[in-house]
Formats: sequence, C-alpha cells, structure tokens
Amino acid sequence: MVHVSWGLGLDRVVEPVGVLPQAAWRLDPDSDLRTDEVAIAVRRLNLDAASYRQLADEHANNGLAIRDAVLEIIRTRGKMHNPVTGSGGMLIGTVEEVGTDSVLGLVPGQSVASLVSLTLTPLRIDDALRNWDGSGEQVLCAGRAILFGRSIAAVLPADLPEEIALSVFDVCGAPALVDRVVRETKARSVCVLGAAGKSGSLSLAAARRAGATRLVGLVPTEREADNLRATGLADEVVVADARDPLAVSTVVGEPVQVSVVCVDVPGCEHGSILATAAGGTVIFFSMATSFAGAALGAEGMAADLTMLVGNGYTPGHAELALDLYRSNAGVAHLFATRGRA
Amino acid sequence: MVHVSWGLGLDRVVEPVGVLPQAAWRLDPDSDLRTDEVAIAVRRLNLDAASYRQLADEHANNGLAIRDAVLEIIRTRGKMHNPVTGSGGMLIGTVEEVGTDSVLGLVPGQSVASLVSLTLTPLRIDDALRNWDGSGEQVLCAGRAILFGRSIAAVLPADLPEEIALSVFDVCGAPALVDRVVRETKARSVCVLGAAGKSGSLSLAAARRAGATRLVGLVPTEREADNLRATGLADEVVVADARDPLAVSTVVGEPVQVSVVCVDVPGCEHGSILATAAGGTVIFFSMATSFAGAALGAEGMAADLTMLVGNGYTPGHAELALDLYRSNAGVAHLFATRGRA
Repeated sequence: MVHVSWGLGLDRVVEPVGVLPQAAWRLDPDSDLRTDEVAIAVRRLNLDAASYRQLADEHANNGLAIRDAVLEIIRTRGKMHNPVTGSGGMLIGTVEEVGTDSVLGLVPGQSVASLVSLTLTPLRIDDALRNWDGSGEQVLCAGRAILFGRSIAAVLPADLPEEIALSVFDVCGAPALVDRVVRETKARSVCVLGAAGKSGSLSLAAARRAGATRLVGLVPTEREADNLRATGLADEVVVADARDPLAVSTVVGEPVQVSVVCVDVPGCEHGSILATAAGGTVIFFSMATSFAGAALGAEGMAADLTMLVGNGYTPGHAELALDLYRSNAGVAHLFATRGRA
Repeated sequence: MVHVSWGLGLDRVVEPVGVLPQAAWRLDPDSDLRTDEVAIAVRRLNLDAASYRQLADEHANNGLAIRDAVLEIIRTRGKMHNPVTGSGGMLIGTVEEVGTDSVLGLVPGQSVASLVSLTLTPLRIDDALRNWDGSGEQVLCAGRAILFGRSIAAVLPADLPEEIALSVFDVCGAPALVDRVVRETKARSVCVLGAAGKSGSLSLAAARRAGATRLVGLVPTEREADNLRATGLADEVVVADARDPLAVSTVVGEPVQVSVVCVDVPGCEHGSILATAAGGTVIFFSMATSFAGAALGAEGMAADLTMLVGNGYTPGHAELALDLYRSNAGVAHLFATRGRA
C-alpha cells in the first residue's frame, strides 16, 4: 500500500516544516528531482486574476514594478503564491525530466499545463522575466517547475490554441462534477447561476449530455441573456441578480433538482437554495461561497438539500471539459465573448 | 402549488425590504400573527457561545452592561442577532397562538424549542430581562417570538432536562446527516474529528447505528481520549491536532470512507481530506470551515472526494438525535463532561 502522504511534495517544504506545500511559506524548487516527481521547463505562467489585479493596484499599473514584485515573490517563496490574495494560477511548459516512480504518465518533450495551483508548485525563474513587460496575466518566462506524484497535469491538445486550452482547464472541475451529480441523481432539471461564463457554459453542456431535459441558465444582464440564448445551451434563459434570493426563485419558477453556482461574487447561497427542490443538490463552484451562509441558510429555510463543495478534481475532468468545448459551438462562442469582455 | 417564498417571513422584514429575515437588519416582532405563523411565549434564550463571549469581552464581563446590550440589540433589530458575530442562538417557550395555515403541527400550551436561528426569528422582550443578571448564555426572559411557516421547532421531551434537550437540538443536524450519508453510501469506516464533543459523540453513535463497523474517534488531548474510550462509542480512539494534516492521516492510518469534521477551529480541511479514501465523503459541520480551503485542498491533493456542507436541517433530525442520546449512555456521559469543562 502506498503511504497516504506519498506524492504530496512534503520534502520540498522549507518553511514551516511539516505543513503541506500549499500552506508553506517557502518551497525548495532547486534540489534534484525525487523519483516521484516531474520537472517542467516552464514557458508561461497564467496568473490568477485576483492576484494580478492586486499587484497591479499595489504598483499603480507600473509594468516593471509588477514584474519585479512577481520575481520577488517567486524568489522568496519558491512558488508564485501571492501573499496578499493567497492565490496563484497555472503554468504551461515542456516536460523535461520524469522520475522513475512518477505515475503521471508524462514523457519528456510533451507540452503540458499544470492543473494544480501555482500556490503549491515549486518554481524557479531563470530569465529574470525579461520577456514580460508586466502588463497582463500571461507571464512569458523561462524557468523550472516541479510536479509531485499527486499533482495533476494535462497534455495540451494539438487542435486548440494554448490560451483556449488553459481557459478550459481552469474551470474543468465544474462540468466534471455536474456530469457526475446529474448522472448519479438522475436529475432532469438543472439551473446554472452565472450560465454565460466559462464554468457556467461548460456546466450547461455537461448537464445536457448527462441527461438533463430542463436547463435553466441564469445571467445578470439582458446582454448576457442574448449571448446565451444564441447558443442554445439552455432551454430557458432568465435574468436576475444572483444575490437576490427572491428574484432568483421567481425567475426560475418551478424549483430545479440541481443548482450550480458559478457566479464569482459573494451572497449567492440563499438564491440557489431557494431555487432548488426538496431532496435536490446545490453545487457551489464559486470561491466566493460562504460556508456559513450556505449551512445556516439551508437550515433557516428548512431546506432538505445536499450541498456540495465544488471539488476542483474529478478523474478525467480535463478530457471531459475539452470534449464538451470541442462538441459545443455555443461554448466556444461564449468563451470567445468572455475573452473580449 | 405553494409558492416558493411561502412561509419565509418576508413580510416581517422591515429593513432592508426584499431580503430574507436572516439577512435583514430589522424585523417586526409586534404586528398581528399571520395565518402561517406561530406565536411563542418565550421563557429562555440560549445565546450562541460566540455571541455571548463577544458581548462579555466588549463589556468587561459587567453583567448589567451585557444585559443592556442584549436588550438594545433586540429592541433595535427586532431579533437577537449580534451585529458583530453575526450569530444568534435558540429559544424555548410555550406555544401561545397558532395561525390557521400553520404546518408546524404545534398546539397552544406545548413547550417547544425553536430549531432555527435567533438571527431570523422576530423577538420582543416584555420584562426588560429583569430576571437575568447578564452572566452566562442562558437568558431568562418573558417575551414573544414568531415562528414562520417554514421555521423548525421541536416539542421539548418530558423525560429530559430542558438544558440537555437544548444541547441535543443544537447539534442535531450532524447525526442526521451522518446517518443519511453512511446509509446511502454503505460506508463501513468513519472517522469523526472532534469526537468527544456534542456533535462528535452523536455522530459516532449515528454512524454505528447506520451500519459502520470501523469507527475512529479523533480528539486533541489524552484527557479527551480517556473520556471517549470509556464510552465505547469509537472502535479506535486517536490523538492528534486536527489542524495538522500529516498527524491526522498518520494516526488514522488506513483511510476511511467517511470523515466528519466537528472541530470548531479553522484549518481542519486538509487533515480530513487526507484521512479519507478516494471515492469517499467528507462532511464539514464546523462553522469554522473554509470553503476555499476545502475546494483547493482537495484539488491540490488530487483527492476524488465528495465534500458536503453540513446542512443543519434534515427531516426528523431532532427526534433522531434525542433517540441516540437516550439510547447511548456514552453520549450522555460526554455531554455531562463537556458541560463541566
């Protein structure tokens, strides 16, 4: 039996000793590859939007100052883990070296994206970021990153632009969990809050494929409603502020069996609870979800619901999401629309 | 069909209009009973521990000042909703008047406890709290409270002291959800973190009755371990800091199918995830749970787990918890021990 702590990168933790890499202040990105690890020659970081915004604000949008700040974080922490926002991002690069005990199935030369957060990934920058001007979340770079035995990585598909693949990977946990829940509960009615976004549109496509026959897409504006209607991903497109429980339940009408919260603003717990029928399931994907808001909200409304923390990992999630993207022109259309927004 | 917003107490909301009672700043506890409501002659409030501690700190443990503060909150908000902690508590009293459309099944004269939070319960105090000296969370009072169509109330059992019944009701959501999850997943191994507490001991008893055959109780100290061992509620009693993921996974050993987090301190997400086998379930009951900590933690460890927000409401939860309390001397022993601690 493999020990439970195997493959978590514990011996890359420098400070404080004994915590997991994500909780660590500083990781060691330099020492030799362990047998369960994979080394990546990094060519691009995709900073978390909240992290980049914070750095841009702190440095008054001065690109070179932002660049220096990113370099300093990576130098002192051994990972791109913004100490203010607590967030990271993703990376892409080429597989350089594969440990003899690695179970990730990667081979040198493959182009891959890391699907675990940069907040737990040992990273060293070797080019002082000289090819990045500090403007925007896409950081061109040369460096080295380490994937652990349990890290998740996906081979970049040959048929899609790198940026599209990254965007799909970024939200791939959502459609995978929606697929599982709809199949397991045999739910027929699903409402997605934030349905015109990336995770939202993929969730709609996943629910449809999994057998749902009444798909409600909730969006905040008429403009988003028009975009979503044009795709045909939802059977009913409704407009409401997801933070207004009564507005949500009114526009949804007959409660659904599964609600999926993809709206990245706080305060969407009560609306999704109210829109879901007794015995149903609410899946929270938004990182802005309040645990207490959900728990006490359901209790206060005597709502007999299963409420799920949206786990970003489900086996096969990257492939499922890419497949949904490829086979739904409507999803691709919404991804492109969001890119321009 | 009953409209979805029926029975939520919307027309008791004074400010701001349009939100649910829990989110409201001020409720109206005075106006006439609606047909779906029940009026309670309140005799005791059981303040949430965090709320009382905050008030005691703010007023330097001056009982009369604490009493004035509680009165002022109820007077200005129309409910006992501590604006600093955001928490409330529970109440007990006697059913005074039952609206013609009420579905709660109550009749005048019954002694009941309200199982919904005081943060959403219209409340008026009529005796200026003159029989309470401000020391302790149990507030003797005379007043009036309103239960809505969807509020939950439990008739106080004749065979148990009122304080015990309240303590059991306070945590009754936990054993009810553990019962459901263990039965539905047919799990045989269950670990409860914080197993010697009230929700923890009831969760162990519920898991046993639901068919689990390997029950691990995790506690923070040898003293609690001794107390728990004496009850026989767990098959294995282990000692670790629930905030230390590696310590937790080491003492639990072979991962369990269901983990139940009943530890009311932040930072227990990763340990419970690491202690749970692939395909298993983690139930988070602690209000100190970090949504992002759970979601990103599972993703970072590639943990294919179902993670549940501990819903405080499951039909029949109060009766189930009382029954477990009555039929397990060990549970009663731990409740008594905690009361003295």
